Amino acid sequence: MIPTLAITMGDPLGIGPEVVVKALKQDNFHRLCHPLVIGDPGILRRTVAALGFALQIVEVKGAGFEGEPGKVFLLPVSSLPIGKDLRKLPRDDSARASFAYVEKAGRLALTRDVHGIVTGPVNKEAIHRAGIPFRGHTEYLAEISQTKKFVMMLAGERLRVALVTTHIAHEAVAKSLTEEAISNVIEVTNQGLREFFRIPSPRLGVAALNPHAGEGGLFGNEEGRIAGAVQKARKNGLKVSGPWPADTLFYRAVQGEFDAVVCMYHDQALIPLKLLHFDSAVNITLGLPFIRTSVDHGVAYDLAGRGLAHSRSLEEAIRLAAQMALYRQKAKNRE
Amino acid sequence: MIPTLAITMGDPLGIGPEVVVKALKQDNFHRLCHPLVIGDPGILRRTVAALGFALQIVEVKGAGFEGEPGKVFLLPVSSLPIGKDLRKLPRDDSARASFAYVEKAGRLALTRDVHGIVTGPVNKEAIHRAGIPFRGHTEYLAEISQTKKFVMMLAGERLRVALVTTHIAHEAVAKSLTEEAISNVIEVTNQGLREFFRIPSPRLGVAALNPHAGEGGLFGNEEGRIAGAVQKARKNGLKVSGPWPADTLFYRAVQGEFDAVVCMYHDQALIPLKLLHFDSAVNITLGLPFIRTSVDHGVAYDLAGRGLAHSRSLEEAIRLAAQMALYRQKAKNRE
Repeated sequence: MIPTLAITMGDPLGIGPEVVVKALKQDNFHRLCHPLVIGDPGILRRTVAALGFALQIVEVKGAGFEGEPGKVFLLPVSSLPIGKDLRKLPRDDSARASFAYVEKAGRLALTRDVHGIVTGPVNKEAIHRAGIPFRGHTEYLAEISQTKKFVMMLAGERLRVALVTTHIAHEAVAKSLTEEAISNVIEVTNQGLREFFRIPSPRLGVAALNPHAGEGGLFGNEEGRIAGAVQKARKNGLKVSGPWPADTLFYRAVQGEFDAVVCMYHDQALIPLKLLHFDSAVNITLGLPFIRTSVDHGVAYDLAGRGLAHSRSLEEAIRLAAQMALYRQKAKNRE
Repeated sequence: MIPTLAITMGDPLGIGPEVVVKALKQDNFHRLCHPLVIGDPGILRRTVAALGFALQIVEVKGAGFEGEPGKVFLLPVSSLPIGKDLRKLPRDDSARASFAYVEKAGRLALTRDVHGIVTGPVNKEAIHRAGIPFRGHTEYLAEISQTKKFVMMLAGERLRVALVTTHIAHEAVAKSLTEEAISNVIEVTNQGLREFFRIPSPRLGVAALNPHAGEGGLFGNEEGRIAGAVQKARKNGLKVSGPWPADTLFYRAVQGEFDAVVCMYHDQALIPLKLLHFDSAVNITLGLPFIRTSVDHGVAYDLAGRGLAHSRSLEEAIRLAAQMALYRQKAKNRE
């Protein structure tokens, strides 16, 4: 089985179109998946021309095609007016289009027309300013699929991290860490590693919130709630331990002690991840009824249109989504 | 000039005595410094014997000797009763002794009998329980030297980090970040890198507190205070920039963009540092009237007495203190 993956083009004013084109130029992708780009034909063609690539943009109405080298299959959702200078395109229009691609991809995944979604970079602030209450891909896709328990995971070759809280203020983290929220992340992460990474019995290390894990309550006591969630999971047979002091935990994980680290907040997870995998990490949403991976970088407006963007993160995101689809299929066949 | 350094033995029940002996067995240290161990003769001799080292413990009354290979010069401060099993020593006695070594070393540094202090690992909780209100080496040494502005810095070969807040709860960080506190750390770090690391015009990257640096105020607004401190320092001619999103900042520093990263809280600094320099980082207190470095690990009670502890962190701490003393001397000679 070769899975079909919807690939959203990202914000037209950002580096999304460029990294999509660069990634799909790789000759081997059609063996892994049938990539269906959701985006804008004019912008994509212009990007191909600017890069001097010999790639044909083939417009299709949906899945059902077979990927092949030299062709990019595109489901057109917008046709933005592009003059000589793309940068004159109003930011609101660009942001609104970027959201429309995600909407379309979400619908295709819900109806199982595609096996999964790989999302290009959008700008949350810009979408907000364009009048759409968008909190992020993850939250949006959870909402349309009525998913209650979902987890943002980031994976690189040496380290995987799962987040209990994501885009909230540092000060708001402590009170958001309920035992239930931590339990949910442990559970969904465990299940995700089994289903999509073929790890039969994942070993999870759970990070503490406070320095030195609070040093026995000297500073902070959220570790009690974390310990509660860990104990509950252990009773259910999961190989989970913690709360561990965060400063040494990631080193231990990289040394092979854990298959993933459950993190309490965004930067706790992202600092070690980006240090090790600056342009190769993939963002994964676990818990959704479909597969979803994403690039691990932003729109980089200042880099757009210069031909300098790296497509490695998107390539890894496509590869990983294809592999996840394959593993899930195999698991289903075994049932 | 070869500097004399006071080296505190650390908690007798921890791995301190072992790493001291292992480090001072290195033949080349006497060319860098005259190491004066502050500790317990019985325990140190027993450690040497247990490790099977041919090291002579020479008791002295203070500085004024010359270091030489095969000899460890010791200023005895305690003589703890040791039976067959060292582990039967009451923890309170051990903790109290570990504090007495730091006290003595501090006095020697204040009177300029030694050029600097290198501290072995103590256990804050144990010292507390033994009835001594001890918040940490850094805070204690600042207090006895009446130092108002001091900075905890950790340095490895690839990354240096300076901390605005240290051992406090995660939830208490945001309100502790005053513009003044951040300004002080920028100033002391800049001065320390000039004086002790011979970097004439240090480039400092200052980390944001919130994820994505708050994404334009969407989550958290402490970045305003950080920006204020950065602006103030730039007006004074310092090469400082920020607040930068923390997740990519350490990668940039490692790539060579910054000489040090100014961090808002303990784990923000320690996660990337320990990931890169698990057993080779050195803890430095900047701003004191004397040089102070330290091992970057704890007492590791469970590892003690087994001969398995690594002395690399202490060796690096001694080497760096000796080099710092040398650089400072050279700077003074130039004046």
